[in-house]
Amino acid sequence: MIYITRRERFSAAHRMFRADWSDEKNMEVFGKCSNPTWHGHNYILWVTVKGEPSEEHGFVMNLTTLKKIITEKVIDKLDHRNMNTDVDFMAGRIATTENLAIAIWGELRPVIEREGAKLHCVKIEETENNYIEYYG
Amino acid sequence: MIYITRRERFSAAHRMFRADWSDEKNMEVFGKCSNPTWHGHNYILWVTVKGEPSEEHGFVMNLTTLKKIITEKVIDKLDHRNMNTDVDFMAGRIATTENLAIAIWGELRPVIEREGAKLHCVKIEETENNYIEYYG
Amino acid sequence: MIYITRRERFSAAHRMFRADWSDEKNMEVFGKCSNPTWHGHNYILWVTVKGEPSEEHGFVMNLTTLKKIITEKVIDKLDHRNMNTDVDFMAGRIATTENLAIAIWGELRPVIEREGAKLHCVKIEETENNYIEYYG
Amino acid sequence: MIYITRRERFSAAHRMFRADWSDEKNMEVFGKCSNPTWHGHNYILWVTVKGEPSEEHGFVMNLTTLKKIITEKVIDKLDHRNMNTDVDFMAGRIATTENLAIAIWGELRPVIEREGAKLHCVKIEETENNYIEYYG
Amino acid sequence: MIYITRRERFSAAHRMFRADWSDEKNMEVFGKCSNPTWHGHNYILWVTVKGEPSEEHGFVMNLTTLKKIITEKVIDKLDHRNMNTDVDFMAGRIATTENLAIAIWGELRPVIEREGAKLHCVKIEETENNYIEYYG
Amino acid sequence: MIYITRRERFSAAHRMFRADWSDEKNMEVFGKCSNPTWHGHNYILWVTVKGEPSEEHGFVMNLTTLKKIITEKVIDKLDHRNMNTDVDFMAGRIATTENLAIAIWGELRPVIEREGAKLHCVKIEETENNYIEYYG
Repeated sequence: MIYITRRERFSAAHRMFRADWSDEKNMEVFGKCSNPTWHGHNYILWVTVKGEPSEEHGFVMNLTTLKKIITEKVIDKLDHRNMNTDVDFMAGRIATTENLAIAIWGELRPVIEREGAKLHCVKIEETENNYIEYYG
Repeated sequence: MIYITRRERFSAAHRMFRADWSDEKNMEVFGKCSNPTWHGHNYILWVTVKGEPSEEHGFVMNLTTLKKIITEKVIDKLDHRNMNTDVDFMAGRIATTENLAIAIWGELRPVIEREGAKLHCVKIEETENNYIEYYG
Repeated sequence: MIYITRRERFSAAHRMFRADWSDEKNMEVFGKCSNPTWHGHNYILWVTVKGEPSEEHGFVMNLTTLKKIITEKVIDKLDHRNMNTDVDFMAGRIATTENLAIAIWGELRPVIEREGAKLHCVKIEETENNYIEYYG
Repeated sequence: MIYITRRERFSAAHRMFRADWSDEKNMEVFGKCSNPTWHGHNYILWVTVKGEPSEEHGFVMNLTTLKKIITEKVIDKLDHRNMNTDVDFMAGRIATTENLAIAIWGELRPVIEREGAKLHCVKIEETENNYIEYYG
Repeated sequence: MIYITRRERFSAAHRMFRADWSDEKNMEVFGKCSNPTWHGHNYILWVTVKGEPSEEHGFVMNLTTLKKIITEKVIDKLDHRNMNTDVDFMAGRIATTENLAIAIWGELRPVIEREGAKLHCVKIEETENNYIEYYG
Repeated sequence: MIYITRRERFSAAHRMFRADWSDEKNMEVFGKCSNPTWHGHNYILWVTVKGEPSEEHGFVMNLTTLKKIITEKVIDKLDHRNMNTDVDFMAGRIATTENLAIAIWGELRPVIEREGAKLHCVKIEETENNYIEYYG
């Protein structure tokens, strides 16, 4: 079994908050991350797929294909956008990196499996000091 | 002459646009950076000051002092905020990194000179692929 | 299950040696790392905790809390100090990165479990060319 | 169980292609990576070994020994060379990073086991946007 | 005056040698960099242009335009190619990074000046341990 | 004129203090950096030399020669040592990065000039958040 990872990046605005909480309650739980006028990050996304390298061409999965899938399914929807208001797969979710990783997993898994590989991990770095990993 | 540089970081939302332009014109000039629902970045700021190291303690300027100045004058105002709507020194300016560097220079120079050093450069990285330098 | 990782840094002096060995024996086993007048590193520490994201706020664990725990239990004791002589949890241990990772695990696990999450991994980078991981 | 990782680097030329395929077929499957006049990369190699830290000296494995093994068995053969034509352990394999990781695993495992540790992972980064991991 | 820098990357094969020297002489002067079967690197290119930010839109130069120029004039010709045999602007030059920087300067300057900005610096990193800067 | 930069690294212990000051005074001026039991860093050193590339071989200066000079004159004396007590060229100087850069400049300049190049800059990074540059 070989694990192959592709890195992609997107810059997005977001805000952590619950509409059914008061501003005070949001500030208490989410701190400055709940600022009502938004803030944003350069997110780094690593997608790891696994499989056996093909006898024919020596790849687990063609990286050009993997890049195309991630770009169409994830990056084009998030990059230079607002995660809370513009992104269909984040609708109804609090915009934490945990929830973002779970949502991206949901977008990518069926398409990657159709290519004959297995999605292994979605990793998202929000700042140089914190990142999230989700293995399904 | 010795040059000493301090790195600080902030995460902010912004949008490049002119209120006196149509959405179409803004999109034509600023592209996806003018998305009306905002986007954001992890900005990295390097502030370089210059001077002679003191005979007494061997510093050009105490890094703790420099860090305190940058934090109070710049980071506390920008971090986890919206550059267009929340930041006094960006009022009336188009939110390009060029203009941000010029504005930060204006905030920092008088305070750093009061400490006996000279501000040499304000450098801002917006993404890993582009940065701005301003030398006054 | 979601894995969340926080990065912190500390700069410390250390020396690898055994007091019950001669200088020659220490030099033979530990090489230049046993230099009697000490040397030091910028250590990078990644602490990974795991759990289910809360339905209420979407976090596995509040990063502000995790940062506070790591700072109080580990960074404040190691940063700008001598790992061999100043750090209670390293007393009686040879100052290898392996032993440091095990000791930090012991400091962090009970506090993190009290917060309802599980400690998954302590990773320490000593130089850009080597790092240690401990999973308990 | 402790995991210890050593990073090494090598710069090599390569080309992905099959001699039994036409240029058109190679271009279709491998794209620009099959350019007949070669291209190259700065590869980064991480070798992770695992074991219990010794009671005597606190190491899983002496890093100087690990570095020496990786240098002699892998780096000296690949660095500033052509992966397709110059490297004995790549003979007969398509020069994908997947196959390179499997081949390096084969070179390192017996030597590392002779030192009393276990080889855990061979990770190779080809560019900042993609890497391969192999766990045997 | 504002300085704006764009980073781009390319992976290329090369070999340092002079055809009018013997293999021994080439090996003596260029060492392993003259290996006849080629080697390669992930080159990082930083292009810095300077100018006054426009009153109209706040840019020194639109980064999308700068990226397009660098891609067409430099990256498309070098990426996944052999610097010695495939690249018109390197013909007749020894393939050192010094000569590459001078050649890239020659390709970029006229096109950037036509856009109303000034080319300030071409910087090329060959490995993480060495880079070249050329200011014309 | 071409500028060529070589990166080297060393790990050293140090302490900022003046023997003619009380512990209280040292703590007041140098803070935790004056801890009497030492601390340390992974220092990164960039040495930039400048000159015209040779017509004969296309180099400003052979990087192997530059690396050898930096290693012998600087790295071998500082790496895995105590900057205050073990390093001849730091004797009598307060161990600030400013003073270290000036001292390294003094060690390197004559040797580099003997090779026909000019020393342009000594840059030292102490942590990822601060660095010093000295241009003579």
